[in-house]
Amino acid sequence: MKPYVVGIDIGGTNTVFGIVDARGNVIASSSIKTGKFADVNDYVADLKAALTSLLEAHDAVDKIAGIGVGAPNGNYFSGCIENPPNLPWKGKIPFAHLLHEAFGVPVALTNDANAAAIGEMTYGVARGMKDFIMITLGTGVGSGIVVNGQLVYGHDGFAGELGHVIVKPSNGRMCGCGRSGCLEAYCSATGVARTAREFLEIRTDASRLRDIPVEEITSKDVYDAAVLGDKLAKEIFQYTGEIMGRAFANFVAFSSPEAIILFGGLARSGELLMKPIKEAMDRNMLNVFKGKTKLLLSELKESDAAVLGASALGWEARQIPAPPSSQSIVLEA
Amino acid sequence: MKPYVVGIDIGGTNTVFGIVDARGNVIASSSIKTGKFADVNDYVADLKAALTSLLEAHDAVDKIAGIGVGAPNGNYFSGCIENPPNLPWKGKIPFAHLLHEAFGVPVALTNDANAAAIGEMTYGVARGMKDFIMITLGTGVGSGIVVNGQLVYGHDGFAGELGHVIVKPSNGRMCGCGRSGCLEAYCSATGVARTAREFLEIRTDASRLRDIPVEEITSKDVYDAAVLGDKLAKEIFQYTGEIMGRAFANFVAFSSPEAIILFGGLARSGELLMKPIKEAMDRNMLNVFKGKTKLLLSELKESDAAVLGASALGWEARQIPAPPSSQSIVLEA
Repeated sequence: MKPYVVGIDIGGTNTVFGIVDARGNVIASSSIKTGKFADVNDYVADLKAALTSLLEAHDAVDKIAGIGVGAPNGNYFSGCIENPPNLPWKGKIPFAHLLHEAFGVPVALTNDANAAAIGEMTYGVARGMKDFIMITLGTGVGSGIVVNGQLVYGHDGFAGELGHVIVKPSNGRMCGCGRSGCLEAYCSATGVARTAREFLEIRTDASRLRDIPVEEITSKDVYDAAVLGDKLAKEIFQYTGEIMGRAFANFVAFSSPEAIILFGGLARSGELLMKPIKEAMDRNMLNVFKGKTKLLLSELKESDAAVLGASALGWEARQIPAPPSSQSIVLEA
Repeated sequence: MKPYVVGIDIGGTNTVFGIVDARGNVIASSSIKTGKFADVNDYVADLKAALTSLLEAHDAVDKIAGIGVGAPNGNYFSGCIENPPNLPWKGKIPFAHLLHEAFGVPVALTNDANAAAIGEMTYGVARGMKDFIMITLGTGVGSGIVVNGQLVYGHDGFAGELGHVIVKPSNGRMCGCGRSGCLEAYCSATGVARTAREFLEIRTDASRLRDIPVEEITSKDVYDAAVLGDKLAKEIFQYTGEIMGRAFANFVAFSSPEAIILFGGLARSGELLMKPIKEAMDRNMLNVFKGKTKLLLSELKESDAAVLGASALGWEARQIPAPPSSQSIVLEA
């Protein structure tokens, strides 16, 4: 049995990759720029060079059991990245196949939130849990759902888009997906900043946030102001947490998870966010589920989590992905 | 291998049970009154007598591989019926254990909607599907969710309460569960009748439904009027279908099922209901899922379906349920 796996996390800006051992130690990691390459083949060539030199530097070239990849719109069944909104490549990219050709080891691929859920189940706070939901709070809201110890992929490999559950059926905010009222439009870092701009516009009370040019306000600014006791900033967290808690109560009616686990920058807001979420969950929970589902924070170090999660998938990678049919390779620069 | 299983469907009024063979033929069936017995032990004794005489009449006494039970609030993990709202017994009834003691064969129990999902997967339109959602439209709205070929029970055995997903976060109708805005308050047979009363009250246009005493209107009346071309009645189906379709689009974002399958009286309303559901699903669906999830009607004969579904669980029943601790038997007449 080879002792290592490689985890690759493809983000809009950076691609981070690392060599991971069976206990979840990141032996070494590095990164390349994702956006530099209009042609995915050039990107794979660059990744191959960078990863190979990392493997050589750590005497790990022939010690890799598999590669796991987390990528936006990554499809576990097809091994393809399909129409990713924030990556330079369009269409259906047979990424697992391309990486397998480059490295000659099994490759498994899924979306970034699913990879985070696998990481949490393998190395984090979800160890031993068979039913939980991972919610990633970043620029968007992602999710990975585990039922009966298995990730929920659905019939097409795309299940678990809880950021795009519509939580405001009428008069909801426009979402990047083209619809309106999605959870993501309210509860992502971007959503919190939008709430700040809305609150500042329709209200007249004083706030530290009024010192910042309104279009530049970030969720971090709202957090900083709230920590200093700013009333309006605290109410923004209250508003955000209430929407999240209501949505979570609905999620529980679906899969009755042991825990909902939050991950990502916004999840570090502590009780400012956790308290209103818990209260709204409890208030909106069907009696039979009341008080049963824990609300937890990820235990993984954020800098390692994405690579760890993807790497955990590397242990499962068994089959060599089937070569894609030629018409599925649609590369539009 | 014994050639038969027994399926038992416990409803608020009747308990229907049948002997079923491996191909899903209901060899024989019968029923007793559920509500007659304040003490569950008397009920089990009556059920034992009635089922034994059915087994004897069909030379099946020693040919039963297992018993499957579908019951409101039935818990697969514990084998208990827990606080059923429409049954005469309160608390946590160790029903699988009681039946096992009475018949000496393995007993498995789940809620009625889960039993319907298993029946559909074993004998109906979901044969061969690994990911689907069963929605039962009756007095209430129930659901059974199948992911990766397995029923979703959740960590506590109560997952799949989609009738109690809140679809109207503000100003929603009161629901029997004590909260407001639940799918069930709009899309059950009772919900359709409530919509009719609301429409008749706030509108002034003519309708055949105005000939019926308003408190006596049923969903069947609305259906009959709509079939005769009554405009208001057709708009009630439009309204109901829109709420259902929007909810279904959210369910798809969760588990990306191959199909959503409707079962129960209201599901027989045909295009009156199916058309607005399909349109609202499509309009509210996240792009990646658009056009992928089929909306289907159950293929099982309604009179047989509940027994068939429960019986399918009988084949799986392997373990003898653990005897419950004494304090879990709480019988309050």
